[in-house]
Amino acid sequence: MHSIPVIAVDAMGGDIGPSVNVPGAIKAARTFGIKVILVGNEKLINAELDRLPLKGVAYEVVHTDEVAGMDEKPSDILRRKKNASIQIACRLVKEGKADGIVSAGNSGATVACGMFIIGRIAGVERPALASVMPTEKHPIVLLDVGANVDCKPQHLFQFGLMANAFAKDLLEYDSPRIGLLSIGEEEGKGNTQVKEAYDLFKLANDINFLGNVEGRDLFTGQVDVVVCDGFVGNVALKLSEGLSTSMGRLLKRQLMSSTIAKIGTLLAKKAFKKFAKIVDYAEYGGAPVLGLKGIAIVCHGASNDKAIFNAVKMASTFVRKKTNERLVEAISANEELTSFGRAIKN
Amino acid sequence: MHSIPVIAVDAMGGDIGPSVNVPGAIKAARTFGIKVILVGNEKLINAELDRLPLKGVAYEVVHTDEVAGMDEKPSDILRRKKNASIQIACRLVKEGKADGIVSAGNSGATVACGMFIIGRIAGVERPALASVMPTEKHPIVLLDVGANVDCKPQHLFQFGLMANAFAKDLLEYDSPRIGLLSIGEEEGKGNTQVKEAYDLFKLANDINFLGNVEGRDLFTGQVDVVVCDGFVGNVALKLSEGLSTSMGRLLKRQLMSSTIAKIGTLLAKKAFKKFAKIVDYAEYGGAPVLGLKGIAIVCHGASNDKAIFNAVKMASTFVRKKTNERLVEAISANEELTSFGRAIKN
Repeated sequence: MHSIPVIAVDAMGGDIGPSVNVPGAIKAARTFGIKVILVGNEKLINAELDRLPLKGVAYEVVHTDEVAGMDEKPSDILRRKKNASIQIACRLVKEGKADGIVSAGNSGATVACGMFIIGRIAGVERPALASVMPTEKHPIVLLDVGANVDCKPQHLFQFGLMANAFAKDLLEYDSPRIGLLSIGEEEGKGNTQVKEAYDLFKLANDINFLGNVEGRDLFTGQVDVVVCDGFVGNVALKLSEGLSTSMGRLLKRQLMSSTIAKIGTLLAKKAFKKFAKIVDYAEYGGAPVLGLKGIAIVCHGASNDKAIFNAVKMASTFVRKKTNERLVEAISANEELTSFGRAIKN
Repeated sequence: MHSIPVIAVDAMGGDIGPSVNVPGAIKAARTFGIKVILVGNEKLINAELDRLPLKGVAYEVVHTDEVAGMDEKPSDILRRKKNASIQIACRLVKEGKADGIVSAGNSGATVACGMFIIGRIAGVERPALASVMPTEKHPIVLLDVGANVDCKPQHLFQFGLMANAFAKDLLEYDSPRIGLLSIGEEEGKGNTQVKEAYDLFKLANDINFLGNVEGRDLFTGQVDVVVCDGFVGNVALKLSEGLSTSMGRLLKRQLMSSTIAKIGTLLAKKAFKKFAKIVDYAEYGGAPVLGLKGIAIVCHGASNDKAIFNAVKMASTFVRKKTNERLVEAISANEELTSFGRAIKN
């Protein structure tokens, strides 16, 4: 670790590119007193830097011409695009020049480069992609949201251990309440791997396992961490995004349908704005890949500078609080249970 | 089949019981010219009937004192409560005295009694619980939503075939667009069983398979049927219910936070009501169990008389249109593909 956290930012990533990545990263560097390394086309990066106040800001530019496309296969990017900005950013972590990376580029490629270039922590079977989601009361951590589609019970178990460390440090929950996503609250409900993961969680050390939770419990704030496999989690995450967008659109259509309703909407404008803020995913910046020898934050392709700012903030807090040390402790304190899970035929 | 559809209604089912089940069923019998058999405590049923106009309505009461509890295990109800209203209702179908059943009671018990008393259609490997969900544009069918937690590719395939018949007859879609729920639109995305189910759908006869859909596509109305396993579907369904409730609550809280916003809300009241109607699950009554020698509609425990009315309507339409004949045709036209799915090691 460096004297201050150093976060490599994929300046080329995302639908918008340097014009959101550079200002978001620089603002975070200034606000939190960290260093950012901007990786990408230096001409484009410098054009953005020229517009920003840079006095006292710790930053560096690492040039590359190669860019990973949003629609390219992650394995192709990993194998063939050795100089893509995302690969270079991850190599900076591997070589000890940075502590973590942030990218709004091809998510699959970010996860893959995180796993294979930064590498996983010894003892972690599968790094997981976590998402910080807004709920009625406070944000929760949902994981895995897409890194591992076919999971064994011990994978789900380790996801819970890793998210526990993350929720403690990043969301500042004293004793995060862990729920296992299933189709009924009672023990014994669920599919094969969930039922077996339940047993591991029940025996685990130092975690506050509340049992199964159902889809409807996600947004009520009764748990702080929700564990599921990457298939279910990805469906749940995208469904939540899709449903809130659709509901917003439907409501807008109704409210615009008559003059009286339009006037009413105008009067209630401030309330609508506050509501939109609560359900705004940009508040949390991005999804961390947990279990790496460092940290990688995957941002939405449509991220704005606020999302990049918040993602860099998340990465630097993760580094500053040494969350990986806590994560390693939890993984090793429960090593025997994990091997037990591995030993069950599944 | 009878000259008019005969639907057995579990008069005791649900959180409220006869006071919603009886009026809902009688109103449906009168409106659609069908017969309903009310199964349950005759005293309680008659007390409700006394309050209703019954002239020209075809109905019958079958008495039983036994009731299946909402929290009892489905297997216990099936084994030990031979005279529970739900068991008797299903036996009426088995004995040819009714064509289908409707119940707002213990959902697991309704599915179990449907499968083991009414019995599955020959060739159907797994009956599935389908849910008709509102979307921005038109209702869609999501299945399985909880009857089968661990699914093989050929099960997912048959779910699509059955839902296709249902969507044609009940939602009157000419050529329902079938989507397979996954974590990416491209072929080859998903977990093991989804990837293999994709191949079966691609080769299938007489269905309009559109490929994979993601969680966010559920509510945009670009497909008419969404196929998934019962674990994923149950999570998706409950998550949708939970999220719309939470968003409604959040919005209300914001709109009630200032006088100006309150006035605005009052003016926009009609628009809000229309919006609530669009996302109201009672509009579609209940979730059909597809693949039975008859039909069973599982209603929400908190169903009101409107939901029961709509569920009886759904059951009688299913019977009148002989949807099971179309379902059987689709299953047998694709028998070879199903066996092929079975032969793949999974």
